[in-house]
Amino acid sequence: MKAEIITIGDEILIGQIVDTNSQFIGQELNKIGVSVYQITSIQDDEQHILNALKEAQERVDIVILTGGLGPTKDDITKKTIAKFFNDDKFIEYPEVIAHIKELFQKVNHPFKEIQRYQAQLPSKATLLKNNFGTAPGMWFYENETVFVSLPGVPYEMKGLIINEVLPRIQQQFKLPFIMHKTIMTYGQGESTIAERIEDFENNLPPYIKLAYLPSFGRVRLRLSAKGANKEILERELNEKIEAIYQLIPEIITGIDDDASLEKRVGELLREKKQTICTAESLTGGKIAASLVSVAGSSAYYKGSFVTYSAETKINLLGVSKNTIENYSVVSKEVAIEMAKGAKERLQTNYSIAVTGNAGPTTDHNDKSVGVVFIALVTDNKVVVEEFNFGQPREKVINRTVSKSLEILQKEIL
Amino acid sequence: MKAEIITIGDEILIGQIVDTNSQFIGQELNKIGVSVYQITSIQDDEQHILNALKEAQERVDIVILTGGLGPTKDDITKKTIAKFFNDDKFIEYPEVIAHIKELFQKVNHPFKEIQRYQAQLPSKATLLKNNFGTAPGMWFYENETVFVSLPGVPYEMKGLIINEVLPRIQQQFKLPFIMHKTIMTYGQGESTIAERIEDFENNLPPYIKLAYLPSFGRVRLRLSAKGANKEILERELNEKIEAIYQLIPEIITGIDDDASLEKRVGELLREKKQTICTAESLTGGKIAASLVSVAGSSAYYKGSFVTYSAETKINLLGVSKNTIENYSVVSKEVAIEMAKGAKERLQTNYSIAVTGNAGPTTDHNDKSVGVVFIALVTDNKVVVEEFNFGQPREKVINRTVSKSLEILQKEIL
Repeated sequence: MKAEIITIGDEILIGQIVDTNSQFIGQELNKIGVSVYQITSIQDDEQHILNALKEAQERVDIVILTGGLGPTKDDITKKTIAKFFNDDKFIEYPEVIAHIKELFQKVNHPFKEIQRYQAQLPSKATLLKNNFGTAPGMWFYENETVFVSLPGVPYEMKGLIINEVLPRIQQQFKLPFIMHKTIMTYGQGESTIAERIEDFENNLPPYIKLAYLPSFGRVRLRLSAKGANKEILERELNEKIEAIYQLIPEIITGIDDDASLEKRVGELLREKKQTICTAESLTGGKIAASLVSVAGSSAYYKGSFVTYSAETKINLLGVSKNTIENYSVVSKEVAIEMAKGAKERLQTNYSIAVTGNAGPTTDHNDKSVGVVFIALVTDNKVVVEEFNFGQPREKVINRTVSKSLEILQKEIL
Repeated sequence: MKAEIITIGDEILIGQIVDTNSQFIGQELNKIGVSVYQITSIQDDEQHILNALKEAQERVDIVILTGGLGPTKDDITKKTIAKFFNDDKFIEYPEVIAHIKELFQKVNHPFKEIQRYQAQLPSKATLLKNNFGTAPGMWFYENETVFVSLPGVPYEMKGLIINEVLPRIQQQFKLPFIMHKTIMTYGQGESTIAERIEDFENNLPPYIKLAYLPSFGRVRLRLSAKGANKEILERELNEKIEAIYQLIPEIITGIDDDASLEKRVGELLREKKQTICTAESLTGGKIAASLVSVAGSSAYYKGSFVTYSAETKINLLGVSKNTIENYSVVSKEVAIEMAKGAKERLQTNYSIAVTGNAGPTTDHNDKSVGVVFIALVTDNKVVVEEFNFGQPREKVINRTVSKSLEILQKEIL
């Protein structure tokens, strides 16, 4: 069963927003065994929408559109779909009018006549109730293809996908199982790994695919399989993973959803009932965000300090002015004092601190672009390392985050 | 001049990553007068890539592909493009071999034979030098269409777009000017605004488009114009903006890049030489991140505390245990003490603190889901407000960030 996601709206094409809706929809469809064959982002333009619908209908079984359902003139999705289905009869749903009135009353806005159009759907549409907004979703089934039209506002779209769209797709189609397992590695590049597992890869059956996903010093190996029997698929994928384990044991940090360093670190901290805090300079809170992104992190994550300037490092973390003057704000010594300061104030078992120069210029310090110091202070140990992550800025920041978690994981183990 | 962006890689389709590359490319092409007509994400599959290339060639003048240029078996873009152009002759570039060796030497990895393939390009390709990685970009010009193939790693792709692709496009084509101006409003919904500016909108010339972009209590109005003469376009857009100003003066917070509340707030603080800090609970650092996202924010942003638990609110910010016991951790009183605690510790002119219940459950406090308190403490004033942002979680968090900045802006003004 193949699907295409069509996102409608110039704001994606001109780069005003990032298309995160497609990611969410892709993940959710995959979970129920639907492959996303293509994602297409197009303009708010009638002819363009009509073309995209026609092309998608030829390619896939399920077409999911988002965007263009608002009440204003630039929102043309609904009437264009009606045209695509030669459906010129619109039906007004009183329950939608009542729902809109209720939503508006909550925020003390009067109901406007322009909103009435939101409650009118083409006669071929099945209404999908939108609990969080004014524009309902629509479900069409024509020529053995399902067409779903959803609002583009992310939380409205998400509610509709979960509550309305997925259950209906599961009812309508007999779906296979799609399974992905991802192996997280670190410390070796994709070409080295490819050489080490070459024979394994050449002998994979055609229904199992292997992909290499490199990013900032880590490579994820994703195995994807598709088939009718969930148990057999799972067993086969587990065998393949075992085989990879045998080939590159020392560089694997984990499997699957648990494969990210932050999750692995979180599990370890939770098991040992230990806690952590961070003090960050160049990463601006990204290490904290990465730790906090794990559900249940409040059990071990105690808090964080974001200290950009020398001044806040002194005031907030108790870094000594002398240390900064003697060694520069980007130094081993400052990193250690930052970590110690945070640990003392938050009473944790571990404390990570980073200071460095992400570039592009070397304004406030004497270290060259790319130089980063990472300090980890534990109850009985101080670890500090110097790195040069080169440039550009984005790479320096991301490698600092990833390296910090690596150092932490090694230490906890 | 129209372009299509084709991103290749199953990781986007299964939702493993968000496609941020297209946003960057879209923005950059727009700046030089190229409209992005469509963005298409497809699988690492030969036939699918060939189809996408053929369709794109019929739609646009410039096709930009990203992804699938790595050295491993799942990377098939290069040989598929060669097939598309019936080009079976590959040329090895010694300068690319030298560059790869240099990159590998820096990180103490040996050069692998598998890497040699990275230096081999189809004979019809023009080499685009990739300073930050091993896979070069490629430029083709066939049947009056430009095809560009770039690696998918974001910082490598960005370097190639800026240094190689944009200058070549500007040399190859005579480009029109595309101009966008965005008006940021807050406090009224899109349907209310649409009613207020209805006549204005109906009288817009065909080469100026108006779009409504609603999100979390703010609506951005984007005017887009395209034409040969930059000065005329700019004058016309400014006239239109002036007209909108006349119609809805009290809800406009700013124009264009300066339209975001965080930029506006940043400008005001900079003008007045004042400073700010934050203490955040449910928003987990998002208010800080939004302030810090503005270039030059280090002049007025002093730091932030992320304090999830009652314990860290007490230890880090000096919130009193009694206050939490008497009023609950989600209360006016705690919000004020958090803001005061942060202000004292960071010695700023303004301090914003938020505490609330983002849901989905009401575990650690007695307030219902959606309830949020925002406190702003200045040198001579304390402002605190209670809100109910309903649900889901994502909306509560985002509205809290946006409302905090609104309260701050009002106060600074």
